[in-house]
Amino acid sequence: FFHNKLHNSVFLKTNWDKEYVGFATLPNQIHRNSVKKGFEFTLMVIGESGLGKSTLVNSLFLTDLYKDRKVLNAEGRLSQTVGITQKTVCIEEKGVKLKLNLVDTQGYGDTLNNQYSYKGISDYIDCQFEQYRKEEVGLERRHIRDNRVHCCLYFISPFGHGLRPLDVECMQALQDKVNIIPVLAKADCLTRDEVNKKKNRILSEIDEYMLKIYQFPDCESDEDEEFRRQDIEIKKSVPFAVIGSNKVVDINGRKVRVRVYPWGVVEVENPDHSDFVHLRNMLVRTHMQDLKDMTHDTHYERYRSQWLYKHQHTDEVGTSHTVTHTHTIFYSVHCFPLN
Amino acid sequence: FFHNKLHNSVFLKTNWDKEYVGFATLPNQIHRNSVKKGFEFTLMVIGESGLGKSTLVNSLFLTDLYKDRKVLNAEGRLSQTVGITQKTVCIEEKGVKLKLNLVDTQGYGDTLNNQYSYKGISDYIDCQFEQYRKEEVGLERRHIRDNRVHCCLYFISPFGHGLRPLDVECMQALQDKVNIIPVLAKADCLTRDEVNKKKNRILSEIDEYMLKIYQFPDCESDEDEEFRRQDIEIKKSVPFAVIGSNKVVDINGRKVRVRVYPWGVVEVENPDHSDFVHLRNMLVRTHMQDLKDMTHDTHYERYRSQWLYKHQHTDEVGTSHTVTHTHTIFYSVHCFPLN
Repeated sequence: FFHNKLHNSVFLKTNWDKEYVGFATLPNQIHRNSVKKGFEFTLMVIGESGLGKSTLVNSLFLTDLYKDRKVLNAEGRLSQTVGITQKTVCIEEKGVKLKLNLVDTQGYGDTLNNQYSYKGISDYIDCQFEQYRKEEVGLERRHIRDNRVHCCLYFISPFGHGLRPLDVECMQALQDKVNIIPVLAKADCLTRDEVNKKKNRILSEIDEYMLKIYQFPDCESDEDEEFRRQDIEIKKSVPFAVIGSNKVVDINGRKVRVRVYPWGVVEVENPDHSDFVHLRNMLVRTHMQDLKDMTHDTHYERYRSQWLYKHQHTDEVGTSHTVTHTHTIFYSVHCFPLN
Repeated sequence: FFHNKLHNSVFLKTNWDKEYVGFATLPNQIHRNSVKKGFEFTLMVIGESGLGKSTLVNSLFLTDLYKDRKVLNAEGRLSQTVGITQKTVCIEEKGVKLKLNLVDTQGYGDTLNNQYSYKGISDYIDCQFEQYRKEEVGLERRHIRDNRVHCCLYFISPFGHGLRPLDVECMQALQDKVNIIPVLAKADCLTRDEVNKKKNRILSEIDEYMLKIYQFPDCESDEDEEFRRQDIEIKKSVPFAVIGSNKVVDINGRKVRVRVYPWGVVEVENPDHSDFVHLRNMLVRTHMQDLKDMTHDTHYERYRSQWLYKHQHTDEVGTSHTVTHTHTIFYSVHCFPLN
């Protein structure tokens, strides 16, 4: 209590004065706490090499995550399986800390036989769920590391006539484990017409194959006009046609990320040139928490209940002692949700 | 003789007058004959779907070969094997007829497992050699259909970091059968810097894997300045960074093939924008005959001698009669080269 009072002294004081019970400060407390603790977000990028995954992430978070990257040559890639690497970068903006974990899938779709390219990715996601589950039922729960993948940007080649077989297979394998957000990569090689056609084709194929991509929540009725307009723009942009760049130039005093062609200059953040800003707004400014909630409430819960079901079944054949134990865990987690 | 006289009367007349023997007219006769017969050329295009193969061919020959094309969706492509289609178009320009056979490789690199994508292509090329060989040793040799592949444009993705494993494997499988000309596809998504880097990387990988691509013959010393300049330009451009377009607009009265982006207009035939003109000059204006000669003298001869060697060996175990027969063929063909 003393510890709490110390930190919330300002709020408590005002509230004592007005003789409130005080629970109105709870949102503020959560706000303060979250700022103090900082945020954590895990983003996965999937797509063939060369589709600009690294460049886009650098552009999104204004960092340079890939300074010491080594690109393998064809021989290296022949024998290579999909390698999953995780990098962490801490970004601070106006006192708010974001710990960004970036999970990259190098070599995906790169080998001669891509039949099992997505198997390793699927295993990785499960592995993070399992780690979280173990920590969640353990003794020390205050510092659970959360490496669960909250969002997966799936890069679709602008050259495909819609989705490729590998895209369909991979999305089907991952759709119940992670929030998939499809992006149309390197959109600077597509004219406006082509972008629209590809988007329509991709959307109709997503429909046809019943692929489950991340569904944006409906906009709350009490949001302001600007937010609602932005929300509509974001929803309309799926799959986001994106352009990334590591080249920053100075145009009339403002720093702009560009790609310079002999026939013109592409500005990454110009909404007439690409959906980059919509994707960034969505990911960072408006839907980050929803992506985390979806991960915890839907994908992780699915994993956990499957785990429980599987272990219950195994144990019914074995000893009845363990069954009771499993039930206890199930109960306790439901009583004390962690988020 | 009468037939000849009728056709070459103009040349014969002048030559009789000057009391020449007349063989100086041979080049002219060949010229006249070839114009009368017309030219035949078979071009193969290999590359993942979506790399602009059809569009480039349309742009090169100013035709529309692909009006009734149907693009398969992901499901269709999952089960699909590489389908080889051949189309023929006759083009006439200033009285010279060109019969252009276009061999397309649909579905290449498109399936989940691409391990044997190039097998069908290799078989196709052999099949054309075999057909030619059979006709060549047959009775009626005046109208041999020549469907041998004279040139293969190999489309390299602009998104690969150099060559992909599939590219290397495929080129290795085809390099002794056909003249491979590598092109860097859809170069309008690469800045000038990126084009240069990719080209260097591709060339050094071609070197590293000892891939045999088409070697341009040295320029004859008696060619004029303009031709030599153009020849240097062409050789420097390999692998040709190309852009194709089916969209023709009118710019200041001249018809231009373009791609219209929000940030600028790409002109296909502008040498500052791509190597398209160099590729077209090479293919149509300067090196078409050399490509045909290389096919006949090197690739086809290799096929034929392998065939002879194989059948000689088989037959030594069997009857000696057939061996003699094979030898006769070998001899006769060498005495009467067809070209």
